[in-house]
Amino acid sequence: MTNRVPDEALIKVPGNSLITPTPEEGRALAFDIARHTIHTIQPDLDVLQGGRPDYATTPDSLIRAAHVVAVEFATVAAANNYWRS
Amino acid sequence: MTNRVPDEALIKVPGNSLITPTPEEGRALAFDIARHTIHTIQPDLDVLQGGRPDYATTPDSLIRAAHVVAVEFATVAAANNYWRS
Amino acid sequence: MTNRVPDEALIKVPGNSLITPTPEEGRALAFDIARHTIHTIQPDLDVLQGGRPDYATTPDSLIRAAHVVAVEFATVAAANNYWRS
Amino acid sequence: MTNRVPDEALIKVPGNSLITPTPEEGRALAFDIARHTIHTIQPDLDVLQGGRPDYATTPDSLIRAAHVVAVEFATVAAANNYWRS
Amino acid sequence: MTNRVPDEALIKVPGNSLITPTPEEGRALAFDIARHTIHTIQPDLDVLQGGRPDYATTPDSLIRAAHVVAVEFATVAAANNYWRS
Amino acid sequence: MTNRVPDEALIKVPGNSLITPTPEEGRALAFDIARHTIHTIQPDLDVLQGGRPDYATTPDSLIRAAHVVAVEFATVAAANNYWRS
Repeated sequence: MTNRVPDEALIKVPGNSLITPTPEEGRALAFDIARHTIHTIQPDLDVLQGGRPDYATTPDSLIRAAHVVAVEFATVAAANNYWRS
Repeated sequence: MTNRVPDEALIKVPGNSLITPTPEEGRALAFDIARHTIHTIQPDLDVLQGGRPDYATTPDSLIRAAHVVAVEFATVAAANNYWRS
Repeated sequence: MTNRVPDEALIKVPGNSLITPTPEEGRALAFDIARHTIHTIQPDLDVLQGGRPDYATTPDSLIRAAHVVAVEFATVAAANNYWRS
Repeated sequence: MTNRVPDEALIKVPGNSLITPTPEEGRALAFDIARHTIHTIQPDLDVLQGGRPDYATTPDSLIRAAHVVAVEFATVAAANNYWRS
Repeated sequence: MTNRVPDEALIKVPGNSLITPTPEEGRALAFDIARHTIHTIQPDLDVLQGGRPDYATTPDSLIRAAHVVAVEFATVAAANNYWRS
Repeated sequence: MTNRVPDEALIKVPGNSLITPTPEEGRALAFDIARHTIHTIQPDLDVLQGGRPDYATTPDSLIRAAHVVAVEFATVAAANNYWRS
């Protein structure tokens, strides 16, 4: 039996909205959206945790992950008109 | 005889629209558009499934795939005015 | 004598317009623009076909290619105001 | 006991705003956001510092990191209307 | 004595304008801008031509190059309001 | 004692403005911003120059660098309304 990520980790856009009160929460949403995408593609928790030690200690992998968060955040920030006012 | 992906998996923009009622459905569309792109480039199901064990257990590959979904979602989200109202 | 891709495959923007009636056709245009770019950089058909077996069976390469289509589609979709109305 | 990055390095958007008085400060914010993303994914300072000698002396890794800063800056610059007036 | 690329290949934006009459010419400009960037970073023609056989026969390298052209074209297309009317 | 890049190479946005009179100067600014980012992350000139022979003769590295310039230029060009009038 596969050790799957919990169902809530498979929600693609947590809260089903891109609107957040603050940039900090918008950034957290970008993290969540990126992470849930990984979970959706690979929902086997053992596989995910097995890859973690390698990925999380490799600078290039960390930079790649940060790149994805940056792209998601660009969308979230635009959705919120950059929290300008 | 090649084991091809079904015809509906080769539709490039499922539903032929970028407009969705909610962010969650917009995100699902982004996933579908990305996946169908892969299917269109490589429609041989055996090849796709043969590559899956390697790809789906390699963190860098998962991150790369998540990056593509992020780019597609940026387009879908803009199309929907970010589901603002 | 080099086995070159046909001349029409070297047209950079087929139809010389980014406007398409539907998202599906817009996506097809994004594919064509991306493919013709490859043809323009490497017009030797034998080289292109020689690289195909390796590229088309490597998940990371397929994802890379899908990424380029995603970027081209973002431009085509914006050009068409996302086919909103 | 893990040697964690300090708590302030885990704030995702320092100052909780994308608005800055000048492009120079906007660029500095883009650097901070990118760096804090790395810290959030990998908060173990020893791991981060252990990877630094390899990463910081590899041109491709430096370029990858610069790419992420570029993407973050695009968002910050848009938020500030490019400091046009 | 180094065999340098000709001076005109070092002009960063040929014609010093992003405006073109047609998408086809806009795409050609995107190619030129991308190529001149490479020339500016590495102006030694012998080095460039020495790397060509490897790069131009490697699918991943061709896709990477196509990606850059796609990003430049996004800018050129936006500059021209996508040649909409 | 480290052989550091000069202080002016660490200014993140030279001139502290994204506005330039022409596309050519805007492109030059994009180059400068990208280069100064590398300098900021790795200010040791000996390390930078040590990596140069490898990086500048590797097509994939040149393409990666050109990609970053393209992303920076997209921002600079938008800031200048694409020098349209």
